Amino acid sequence: MTPIRLGMVGGGSGAFIGAVHRIAARMDGHFALVAGALSSNPERAAESAAELGIRGYSDFNDMAVAEAAREDGIEAVSIVTPNHMHAAPATAFLRAGIHVICDKPLAATAEQAREIADAAKASDARFFLTHNYSALPMVREARALVAENALGMIRLVRVEYLQGWLAGQTDSKQAEWRTDPARAGAGAIGDIGTHAWQLAEYVTGQTPAFLSADLSSMVPGRQVDDDARIALRYASGAKGGIWASQVAVGQENGLSLRIFGTEAALEWRLQRPEELIVTPKDGPARILTRAQDRSRSFRTPPGHPEGYLEGFSNLYSDIASVIRGDSTHIDRVPGLQAGLSGMAFIAATQASAARDGAWIEVRT
Amino acid sequence: MTPIRLGMVGGGSGAFIGAVHRIAARMDGHFALVAGALSSNPERAAESAAELGIRGYSDFNDMAVAEAAREDGIEAVSIVTPNHMHAAPATAFLRAGIHVICDKPLAATAEQAREIADAAKASDARFFLTHNYSALPMVREARALVAENALGMIRLVRVEYLQGWLAGQTDSKQAEWRTDPARAGAGAIGDIGTHAWQLAEYVTGQTPAFLSADLSSMVPGRQVDDDARIALRYASGAKGGIWASQVAVGQENGLSLRIFGTEAALEWRLQRPEELIVTPKDGPARILTRAQDRSRSFRTPPGHPEGYLEGFSNLYSDIASVIRGDSTHIDRVPGLQAGLSGMAFIAATQASAARDGAWIEVRT
Amino acid sequence: MTPIRLGMVGGGSGAFIGAVHRIAARMDGHFALVAGALSSNPERAAESAAELGIRGYSDFNDMAVAEAAREDGIEAVSIVTPNHMHAAPATAFLRAGIHVICDKPLAATAEQAREIADAAKASDARFFLTHNYSALPMVREARALVAENALGMIRLVRVEYLQGWLAGQTDSKQAEWRTDPARAGAGAIGDIGTHAWQLAEYVTGQTPAFLSADLSSMVPGRQVDDDARIALRYASGAKGGIWASQVAVGQENGLSLRIFGTEAALEWRLQRPEELIVTPKDGPARILTRAQDRSRSFRTPPGHPEGYLEGFSNLYSDIASVIRGDSTHIDRVPGLQAGLSGMAFIAATQASAARDGAWIEVRT
Amino acid sequence: MTPIRLGMVGGGSGAFIGAVHRIAARMDGHFALVAGALSSNPERAAESAAELGIRGYSDFNDMAVAEAAREDGIEAVSIVTPNHMHAAPATAFLRAGIHVICDKPLAATAEQAREIADAAKASDARFFLTHNYSALPMVREARALVAENALGMIRLVRVEYLQGWLAGQTDSKQAEWRTDPARAGAGAIGDIGTHAWQLAEYVTGQTPAFLSADLSSMVPGRQVDDDARIALRYASGAKGGIWASQVAVGQENGLSLRIFGTEAALEWRLQRPEELIVTPKDGPARILTRAQDRSRSFRTPPGHPEGYLEGFSNLYSDIASVIRGDSTHIDRVPGLQAGLSGMAFIAATQASAARDGAWIEVRT
Repeated sequence: MTPIRLGMVGGGSGAFIGAVHRIAARMDGHFALVAGALSSNPERAAESAAELGIRGYSDFNDMAVAEAAREDGIEAVSIVTPNHMHAAPATAFLRAGIHVICDKPLAATAEQAREIADAAKASDARFFLTHNYSALPMVREARALVAENALGMIRLVRVEYLQGWLAGQTDSKQAEWRTDPARAGAGAIGDIGTHAWQLAEYVTGQTPAFLSADLSSMVPGRQVDDDARIALRYASGAKGGIWASQVAVGQENGLSLRIFGTEAALEWRLQRPEELIVTPKDGPARILTRAQDRSRSFRTPPGHPEGYLEGFSNLYSDIASVIRGDSTHIDRVPGLQAGLSGMAFIAATQASAARDGAWIEVRT
Repeated sequence: MTPIRLGMVGGGSGAFIGAVHRIAARMDGHFALVAGALSSNPERAAESAAELGIRGYSDFNDMAVAEAAREDGIEAVSIVTPNHMHAAPATAFLRAGIHVICDKPLAATAEQAREIADAAKASDARFFLTHNYSALPMVREARALVAENALGMIRLVRVEYLQGWLAGQTDSKQAEWRTDPARAGAGAIGDIGTHAWQLAEYVTGQTPAFLSADLSSMVPGRQVDDDARIALRYASGAKGGIWASQVAVGQENGLSLRIFGTEAALEWRLQRPEELIVTPKDGPARILTRAQDRSRSFRTPPGHPEGYLEGFSNLYSDIASVIRGDSTHIDRVPGLQAGLSGMAFIAATQASAARDGAWIEVRT
Repeated sequence: MTPIRLGMVGGGSGAFIGAVHRIAARMDGHFALVAGALSSNPERAAESAAELGIRGYSDFNDMAVAEAAREDGIEAVSIVTPNHMHAAPATAFLRAGIHVICDKPLAATAEQAREIADAAKASDARFFLTHNYSALPMVREARALVAENALGMIRLVRVEYLQGWLAGQTDSKQAEWRTDPARAGAGAIGDIGTHAWQLAEYVTGQTPAFLSADLSSMVPGRQVDDDARIALRYASGAKGGIWASQVAVGQENGLSLRIFGTEAALEWRLQRPEELIVTPKDGPARILTRAQDRSRSFRTPPGHPEGYLEGFSNLYSDIASVIRGDSTHIDRVPGLQAGLSGMAFIAATQASAARDGAWIEVRT
Repeated sequence: MTPIRLGMVGGGSGAFIGAVHRIAARMDGHFALVAGALSSNPERAAESAAELGIRGYSDFNDMAVAEAAREDGIEAVSIVTPNHMHAAPATAFLRAGIHVICDKPLAATAEQAREIADAAKASDARFFLTHNYSALPMVREARALVAENALGMIRLVRVEYLQGWLAGQTDSKQAEWRTDPARAGAGAIGDIGTHAWQLAEYVTGQTPAFLSADLSSMVPGRQVDDDARIALRYASGAKGGIWASQVAVGQENGLSLRIFGTEAALEWRLQRPEELIVTPKDGPARILTRAQDRSRSFRTPPGHPEGYLEGFSNLYSDIASVIRGDSTHIDRVPGLQAGLSGMAFIAATQASAARDGAWIEVRT
């Protein structure tokens, strides 16, 4: 199949989420990145585009118009800018008939969200939001279990999303716009709270009817919330809670979901993404793995953890460096010697086994 | 940077490891797959090449000659055939001056291994072997710790690689050649034992001097080993053990490494790839994560587990399907509604917090 | 040292917590149980006392008077009745000058609590409340760490106490009085919420200044709360939360504590009582064990988990049965054959090692 | 029931395993310790006996004769001396018709073992060996599962017992006799290897037919083995392995058991004694807890981990100190204030819930 031609707004050099989107788009070969307005700074935009070998634009409006006009123009665009810069490009590309893949949260303000909604309604192009966690295999299986009523009636829902990276003052680029009310719109609740909210909504299929919240700005001088504790009430009578914090020292990215029904409970934690623990009312907990995921949302067999592919990619990237003449990391790439060592291992093992476990010298 | 032009031998449709190599080569954008002899069956070779949109060959010798002659010919080739089919293509491409990236183990027999070694010596092209586990970040950090003597003198080494998928009779394609002595050369010791051997060698920097082995074929009628228990002795006086089994029922892919030195111990398990547990002689165990990996062999921040990228890729692939007109999985892709729900969540949270936790209705 | 003479109120046959108190009192040999008013039913009281070989009373008031008058009367009394029956005996024994060891919570109503407080003030005897979880070694170490400011200023506190045993209708004796408002006073918040509250108070040294609560009775017809979600605010500006539930299906007894400060965080879970995880702001998590517990609140070396003693006791109890003529469980008690088998193991191991790993027949 | 009168040989002040036996004998109330030859040093023997308030002897032979002659003499004796001192007292008490409860391993030499065996055969009294690990609830359930063929035919067995406390030179009392060939008979294989051996034998019901061993003395100058790696072959065709080490730095007491059959596998680890993981051939792993233990070898409900009792006992012991006038640890014992705080918590929670979650001041 021909790859879909993809553009990108934001994601210039140094950006975190832009690079993630590019790898993700590349992984399965369904997309080819061909154009981008990668920075609001024209020079950086041009440099970044050149680096990636794609058509560069300094303005996303120009890009939307120009790409729509080209026969080989982009069919979809990824928007990976800070929250307050989602609405304008999303609207522009939707109007140009180009599909939009937008990072979360939708926008920094309710007005911006409405603009996007209006543009989406008026356009034939589609709008996608990258809540990536609900695309993990065991989360999809969790949703399937709830949908088929394996938990009975849901009573209790708990989502936590705990990070510690904003526990102190910090001047990182990532932190800067996320703690600026104008650009982020909200603090922890927007940046990670919306992930928690969507995760619960995705798996349970229910949206809470009421909530009660306590927001804090724990770090002196911070102008957005950095800790949020939210009680939830569902129309069904179920109760729930969200805790989203960016001042939970020592937590790297602690997302977790627990749901208790009348018949069974389930638990999933991002730090052990391959395990979905399901505990029926009367019986032992079961550890479901990808072997049980019916959505088949994975590329490698169960037990080859997600990350297996990254290990392979690490090798390929080191190999590329070596081929290109940079041997800095040659020691990290197994080569002939490793292969011969393995063969010596096999030979010695077979020889020893043939002699009932006699000690055999390994000759590499 | 221009991607390196890559070819592939083996990996036709239905192959496991060929698909893995292709994703890995694609992930960081350093390679472009342009040619392949993807199957020994000419028809399947042609079909598979067409599917991938690359130059197809029915014979790898022809491919080596033809590609070497083209100006835009491949610079490197990935060999992802069964073990007994490594030596012939590796030799052909090395002779043609094309870098070889070969799956492990090196070969099915010692003779084949020698052929490759001879060809590698005679060629300017390089030879790489994809022992992927030693490319994971925490394994690289483990190696660094041993290298800087953080464990003191190594005394005890233990590697286990336990799988259960060959515990019974099976007629899967993957099982078929792996249990055929002619094509695999060895059973568990070749398929997974060599991974265990290389992992220990990579992290410790030492090759065992002697070994004593007990090989079993637990499944009636099996002609290769399916369980291997191997005692190791190092020249340094250290002792070690490898247990590689493919009849360990319930084990999906249980690779683990433990090393005990005079000063500290380390432990790593593939099923929790992000954790390297280091226990000093006098003090509590420390759980190292990618935040401590000095090789920086990763793409996402600590706590965004390896697999995070796959989640994103799942979304991109579902989005591609939708864009191409297949809406089977539209319910798995968050869109505008998810975005608006998130905005409603933020608004309700802020309203409730502003009123000291009053219960607020969520208006999506 | 002479054991302290102990009495008991409540704890007749079939009671759970009474038996626990008796074992606990016996374990270190500091107490000798000599008297009891073990049931409000005179016949059961007499039978239970006879079974235990102690002086029996049918009325705790009589017991308080009689024991205070005896030269060899009890010095302390354990009160292990339902909540609403704490105040009367506690008051009676305090007035009689006898130390009181009372199960939690203090009482079923505020009035009863006041009575106890008044009696305690007026008496020379002491009053103890058995919040047993804060007596575990790693909890004591947690408290010590907080006290020495190892966490910096505390910002976030979270305690969960989740059980599932009341998720449905149940007619167990334990459930009956716990779900009766008259006898229990409160539901989950009294039975387990007070444990959570005390645990946080004990470790942090702080009592929350304000709270906001949401109580539910999830099971139809239940007259006390069975799920409690409570937000906490501390005078220091710290925030916290308690979740106590008895309808969390599949949770056997899930008590956990997490505290995040400005400098470090700690986490403790009852299901892994031997591990206290401390994560400093900049560096890997450390798993503290009893080897690090400075309160030395244990009886066996680190790594011999709590429960080690119960294993030994299981043996002693089975041995007692055998000695008394009941050989039902003789197969669970290792005897001579096990000893000879162990000796054969040692001999064969040494013989094999002496012959460089030759296979030796084991002769038991 | 009247407690069985118990004596003890060894276990004077400072001994580890003697104290463990005393607690274990006391826990369920089936034994009363009344006599002892607690040390080979007459003075220490007398002092230790006085401390425990029991009849003291300086010689176990005298003790056997004297106790057998008394009407209220001991009915059973616990032998908790170093290995080489098991045979003489065991023989003496068996001859005197007194039941023997002996710590493992049976003896230091095969000759001593034979003496015990002969004395046991000639006596009406019984001989018990305290392999305590096989008395834990989940180990007993493991044995039951194997016995009912839940694993199918056993193929693979693996036991590890790893400690690090002898990784360096040490002059502790515990280490001293354990590293003396004359008193211990063997090193790691006797001290912990026999536990591993018995655990496998107990759970599988099979004794290996052949073994192949590699013993090391890793610490310079050590005269007994401190690391043992042993390959096992069963008559059934099953294979197994034992690894017992006392130089595994950082391991406190790492005992584990894994068994793989044709139908399912099981895994148990002492560090998580409450979990028995059973993985069927086709399906997710199940985490069995005491809720599934059919031997009912426990004193508290599932989820109240073993160790729960020790927490209670910690309180009782601190309370005893306070009652006896030593208030050093008064801050560790919850009292009236904790009780009133709990009541304030309940009251504030109910008041807040009654006002729909309004923030309520906590009045303690």
